[in-house]
Amino acid sequence: MRIMVIGGDGYLGWPTALHLSARGHDVAIVDNLVRRSYDHELGTHSLTDIPSIHERVALWQALSGHRITVGIGDICDYSFFEAFFVDFAPDAIVHFGEQRSAPYSMIDRRHAVYTQSNNVVGTLNVLYAIAEHAPDCHLVKLGTMGEYGTPNIDIEEGFLTITHNGRTDTLPYPKQPGSMYHLSKVHDSHNMMFACRIWGLRATDLNQGVVYGLDTTETCIDPRLVTRFDYDAVFGTALNRFIVQAVCGMPLSVYGKGGQTRGFLDIRDTLACVELALNTPAARGEFRVFNQFTEQFSVQQLADIVVHAAAKHGISAQIAHIDNPRIEKEEHYYNAAHSKLIELGLQPHFLSDTLIESMMTHISARTHAVRPELVMPTIKWKKD
Amino acid sequence: MRIMVIGGDGYLGWPTALHLSARGHDVAIVDNLVRRSYDHELGTHSLTDIPSIHERVALWQALSGHRITVGIGDICDYSFFEAFFVDFAPDAIVHFGEQRSAPYSMIDRRHAVYTQSNNVVGTLNVLYAIAEHAPDCHLVKLGTMGEYGTPNIDIEEGFLTITHNGRTDTLPYPKQPGSMYHLSKVHDSHNMMFACRIWGLRATDLNQGVVYGLDTTETCIDPRLVTRFDYDAVFGTALNRFIVQAVCGMPLSVYGKGGQTRGFLDIRDTLACVELALNTPAARGEFRVFNQFTEQFSVQQLADIVVHAAAKHGISAQIAHIDNPRIEKEEHYYNAAHSKLIELGLQPHFLSDTLIESMMTHISARTHAVRPELVMPTIKWKKD
Repeated sequence: MRIMVIGGDGYLGWPTALHLSARGHDVAIVDNLVRRSYDHELGTHSLTDIPSIHERVALWQALSGHRITVGIGDICDYSFFEAFFVDFAPDAIVHFGEQRSAPYSMIDRRHAVYTQSNNVVGTLNVLYAIAEHAPDCHLVKLGTMGEYGTPNIDIEEGFLTITHNGRTDTLPYPKQPGSMYHLSKVHDSHNMMFACRIWGLRATDLNQGVVYGLDTTETCIDPRLVTRFDYDAVFGTALNRFIVQAVCGMPLSVYGKGGQTRGFLDIRDTLACVELALNTPAARGEFRVFNQFTEQFSVQQLADIVVHAAAKHGISAQIAHIDNPRIEKEEHYYNAAHSKLIELGLQPHFLSDTLIESMMTHISARTHAVRPELVMPTIKWKKD
Repeated sequence: MRIMVIGGDGYLGWPTALHLSARGHDVAIVDNLVRRSYDHELGTHSLTDIPSIHERVALWQALSGHRITVGIGDICDYSFFEAFFVDFAPDAIVHFGEQRSAPYSMIDRRHAVYTQSNNVVGTLNVLYAIAEHAPDCHLVKLGTMGEYGTPNIDIEEGFLTITHNGRTDTLPYPKQPGSMYHLSKVHDSHNMMFACRIWGLRATDLNQGVVYGLDTTETCIDPRLVTRFDYDAVFGTALNRFIVQAVCGMPLSVYGKGGQTRGFLDIRDTLACVELALNTPAARGEFRVFNQFTEQFSVQQLADIVVHAAAKHGISAQIAHIDNPRIEKEEHYYNAAHSKLIELGLQPHFLSDTLIESMMTHISARTHAVRPELVMPTIKWKKD
């Protein structure tokens, strides 16, 4: 298959591109490298040393014999994107190319407008390129479980059958996103659903949970193939951050009561889910939603798990409850369906002490590079 | 009250500004005059002769003694909007300032991206200005009944109480908008709901039906106070267009089977609804949705009503079913709640033969200006 990976220089995009390339697919990465710019802007960095995208693909070709095409440019710039799209003529697109941090989107008005414009316009451009040049191309788009918020009923996969006043219909699941970033993904989902209905496109929206982990089969082939690893309060996800805190002797920063429950998954399962979606594409005109996570934990449970695993690793980790910078329910019902990817054959890597200990070993070798001042949140949801 | 009317040079914005000014409110119009630019772009025009905004407000001041402040600028330009907002310090904002045509948004990718960027970023800027400078300011925002689409269950006002697997919650009503424009309004609604929840803003989303009519109490004071009247296939709404077609001896162009049912209201009721919303503002933190229409008709019913009224006016009008340029259900269930504005005191002007005949008299005096080539649709939803 000819597969375009948009955002292929990022945390998940890079290992996904390698994974698909290793399986013999013809892969092209499109990336504007803005994730590296966010680091310059915020003073953050990847805890792993990641080579430039050009070095990465050259190394991959030398090691594997597989060539990955690279297009450096912004999908919001249609003159660039359309030309690259027509030239590569993808059978499928995996679209990771969005600003993905909730705190980043909440810095101020400018960052909110940037996040929504960037994500919505980029995805609109992808939809138009497919509709106008390759309507059979399957779009696999990364959404987020955060689109649903925390309703007091079970969360289904994208749609909900509702009976009301004696009549029944299956409608898009109501969305209650919790940040300007999460809102941008809700906007994308509505736009994609419309494009499938009106133009007969085929799309899979992967409503992904919080990803943890670092190693995949392909990134382990050579240390220089490693993906980025963020531990800061803006781009670091909960488990990755907790592990860095434990290893560096910092308390694990749990926001508020820690009762916030979310879906989580191993980075290797992200790759497997994307591959499953690609191998069994949506039908023409179908807008398909998969909830992409394997386990639910509250943030407190997650912290407890890290404390337990750290103890086995010889580390006595502490938990610190800090003021929640976000506005979210800290105690709530949460039960989200996630059977569609299992039905397609996903074999989950559940969170284990072994995984955490392996990550701790990785990070122990990098503690000299950790900058503790990046870990605590400074971006608040509330206006002063 | 100090009321800012964004989009105050448009079809509804102008009469709304006059209506509020006549009631003694301190009114400021903000408009980038882009509606007039769309006419230049498309070769369309208002069938009524509308003076410039500067002449309009000068005339209004001369006639009524009431001064309306004018700020010419784009709300997407925050440096302009923030300064104007801080200077005027509104108690309430009535926000009509969006690209409002579904066909315009479907011209091509560029117009879709423009519509969504313009509408979403403009409204985000309004929300941030309120949150940062006047969090008590009440936002009354024009949405559209088209956000709901045509579900097979009753449409409620913004929210729906859902029981699922034995649990119950009241959630945002699921949205199935039918154009890039309608999608932009759904995005706005989600953004506004979030802003109310997170920052404690107060907002009323008026999900308006299709507006018809021309005259309001204030625009009738002097012919030069008239509002714009569009009959073209891009900006003309169904009833207004049918009346022009009847008066000019053109067949009434019904798209497809004409079974598409929508909510409709008289332009005078738009003004009354906005005023009711302003007089009973949403509470701090409340995101309130009113379905703003007074009657439901199918497009076929509407055409039949015009044919009937035309006959009484001495005109023998014909109906022509043409290929539907949109992709929409032409036969469907439709039953939408619209009681909240009635409960606030709205006394509807139902569609009457008298109103239609009065509009026909108006338009009969302007038939020389009608350009028949503008009436038939050329913008198609489907890709060739």
